[in-house]
Amino acid sequence: MLESKHEAQGNWQSAPGGVTLPRGFKASGVHCGIKKSRPDLALIVSEKQAQAAGVFTSNLVKAAPVLVTMEHLKSGLAGAIVANSGNANACTGDTGLRDARIMAAEAACVLGISPQEVLVASTGVIGKALPIDNVSEGIRIAASGLSPKGSSEAAQAILTTDRTTKEVAVTGRICDRNVSIGGICKGSGMIHPNMATMLGFITTDVAITHVMLKKALVQSVDESFNMITVDGDTSTNDMVIAMANGLAGNTVIDEEGSDFQEFCRGLRVVTASLAKMIVKDGEGATKFVEVRVVGADTVDDARCIAKTVASSNLVKTAIFGADPNWGRILAAAGRAGVDFRPDLTDVYIGDVLVARSGKANGFDEAGAGKANGFDEAGARNALAKTDIEITIDLKSGSSAASAWTCDLTYDYVKINASYTS
Amino acid sequence: MLESKHEAQGNWQSAPGGVTLPRGFKASGVHCGIKKSRPDLALIVSEKQAQAAGVFTSNLVKAAPVLVTMEHLKSGLAGAIVANSGNANACTGDTGLRDARIMAAEAACVLGISPQEVLVASTGVIGKALPIDNVSEGIRIAASGLSPKGSSEAAQAILTTDRTTKEVAVTGRICDRNVSIGGICKGSGMIHPNMATMLGFITTDVAITHVMLKKALVQSVDESFNMITVDGDTSTNDMVIAMANGLAGNTVIDEEGSDFQEFCRGLRVVTASLAKMIVKDGEGATKFVEVRVVGADTVDDARCIAKTVASSNLVKTAIFGADPNWGRILAAAGRAGVDFRPDLTDVYIGDVLVARSGKANGFDEAGAGKANGFDEAGARNALAKTDIEITIDLKSGSSAASAWTCDLTYDYVKINASYTS
Repeated sequence: MLESKHEAQGNWQSAPGGVTLPRGFKASGVHCGIKKSRPDLALIVSEKQAQAAGVFTSNLVKAAPVLVTMEHLKSGLAGAIVANSGNANACTGDTGLRDARIMAAEAACVLGISPQEVLVASTGVIGKALPIDNVSEGIRIAASGLSPKGSSEAAQAILTTDRTTKEVAVTGRICDRNVSIGGICKGSGMIHPNMATMLGFITTDVAITHVMLKKALVQSVDESFNMITVDGDTSTNDMVIAMANGLAGNTVIDEEGSDFQEFCRGLRVVTASLAKMIVKDGEGATKFVEVRVVGADTVDDARCIAKTVASSNLVKTAIFGADPNWGRILAAAGRAGVDFRPDLTDVYIGDVLVARSGKANGFDEAGAGKANGFDEAGARNALAKTDIEITIDLKSGSSAASAWTCDLTYDYVKINASYTS
Repeated sequence: MLESKHEAQGNWQSAPGGVTLPRGFKASGVHCGIKKSRPDLALIVSEKQAQAAGVFTSNLVKAAPVLVTMEHLKSGLAGAIVANSGNANACTGDTGLRDARIMAAEAACVLGISPQEVLVASTGVIGKALPIDNVSEGIRIAASGLSPKGSSEAAQAILTTDRTTKEVAVTGRICDRNVSIGGICKGSGMIHPNMATMLGFITTDVAITHVMLKKALVQSVDESFNMITVDGDTSTNDMVIAMANGLAGNTVIDEEGSDFQEFCRGLRVVTASLAKMIVKDGEGATKFVEVRVVGADTVDDARCIAKTVASSNLVKTAIFGADPNWGRILAAAGRAGVDFRPDLTDVYIGDVLVARSGKANGFDEAGAGKANGFDEAGARNALAKTDIEITIDLKSGSSAASAWTCDLTYDYVKINASYTS
């Protein structure tokens, strides 16, 4: 069956304003000279000390700003995020750690808070020392330009080869208060020359403890940023951090319950929207693909299969070529390391049932006939669209998950091969 | 350090003859009508019942011939291999199982052996029933054309979109007898339309029990076919099978010891040569790449990192573009799931030390300078060659392993996207 998969948006409404929609947040973005001319330094500040939480790259090779931000987040408190693009400050040894700490100290100084309250992020070239004097001056300029309408500027300043800024915000109600959650991010795809990947910054005026904020963040990242794949490469610099300053005045969320669930729903809308924006802006991408696995025994099984199929080069090239190669989809599912029954499994491309119970729908027993008994023209039409859904029904349990990806194109190869320094 | 990594070829000498070099083996290849005009059916026969062993795809979705051959190999005995190309007989349900059994029965009938002694393999389109009448007739024609010089014909008949046949043989001495080992295979890369992957067939006149043959085969496949990657996709049809008919007259190898070790060395030469041929003929490949990990704590750690780096799209596109992106190499190593010290790790491209102790060799502390202090021109020169070696030295233990891959090119995307039925 093809389940309806309505995004559980609940009472949350989209709104403009990004990370500066929630009360008490200001942001700015400036050019400080890491890149030639485009903005390369962003600052996001809460007027009130915020509860804070983060999730970080699982790569063993972690950039200096990742290490410093992990350290600063131990307190669960933060007042500001400072991020640069154009230089990842990764594989830079002790120099890199020193520079990341200088970034935090500089921001703390101009904002009048402690260095431990400043979270640091970088993205860009790996292996090159930060031009730290430029960065320090950039922080001072950015601080003087902080604005309650500065979200787009900040979103611009964290981009590397992204084609578009990625910004979203929602409003809702918790505990009879109007609350809002905003987010900006930059794209995945470790890009030339040695660019580092995904940064996401979330702000909210909801009152919540950092323990519950971390719990909500981990859950929503698992269902969003962790379910997208552009090329399977994870970076040295990935991080998603969230700050909650409590200015909405709701009763503090300090345990699971209906308020926490409502906050999670809103957060999921923000992170899922940002994650999809990243895929749509994937390197060389011409198509957005949702791989949905249903009928799985567990959510973990469904996620694992969805991600394996979504990261198959063969599936992604077939989608680029609008080739309804259901055999590749089933074969990719089969190598996911999950136990399932291929002989029960159905595969849909769009609404077209291409494989039923592990064989081509309409399988020709006689042999010499055509390979595909299914509606091949219909499947090709579905694949010719820019927004494609592949559904895999394992017909076993009742768990489901989706992964999002893009097609693999000539331009992906071109972007990633043609760097000359 | 850059270790010398001389292939431990021992007393084994290359020789022509492929799978029909070992005494008592004949082979043939014919066209039976699965493909339009190229050979599509191969037969390999031992005049004496042979000890036999196989390794098979780990994909949960296994083609009918894989299931039937696994069943037939339970006895450890075989007399013949019959293989077709052009149709994988995968995702074909009960019809497929019936057809795979008919192939075995037909070959058994014309050869005067039992159907259980026939091993079956298929490669080609997924999801289409075999034209079994053509196949049966092909088997009869192939049997009448069996020749002690038929290896190349058989090697030709198992190809799909491979550009070259893949054939190798070696001679050596075991227990004061002249012995030989031969092999043929077809390429990896699950290719349009839904082609299935790697087949390898090994013959030898060495006398060895099927238990020890299986042990030797598993070891040598782990170091060869399991260390190559073209696109990370494993197939429904992969198999490597070996037959040992004992006609060399050596004392039967039935335990570990110097004879077994000698046989393993010879087998490794055959499987490593075939594996490298597959990579060199990878879809769209213009370059052959060896990723060598040294200084690891365990061989498993070394293999895991080597394979992760070798399968990174970003590393493979950088190699296509001759871009000395050592950051991508280190970042790929970091996501292998192996615990190592990035801050100790050296990376070489060819003979050029590009990263020392996790930083660019010659890292510029001052920052604003150049990203790479290493010999960038030298690294580019190394990457401009068609045969490239990347070495990652973890500087911890004394274990090493190599993985082999090719570059990721426009043509890979083209081959895999542009199929129209």
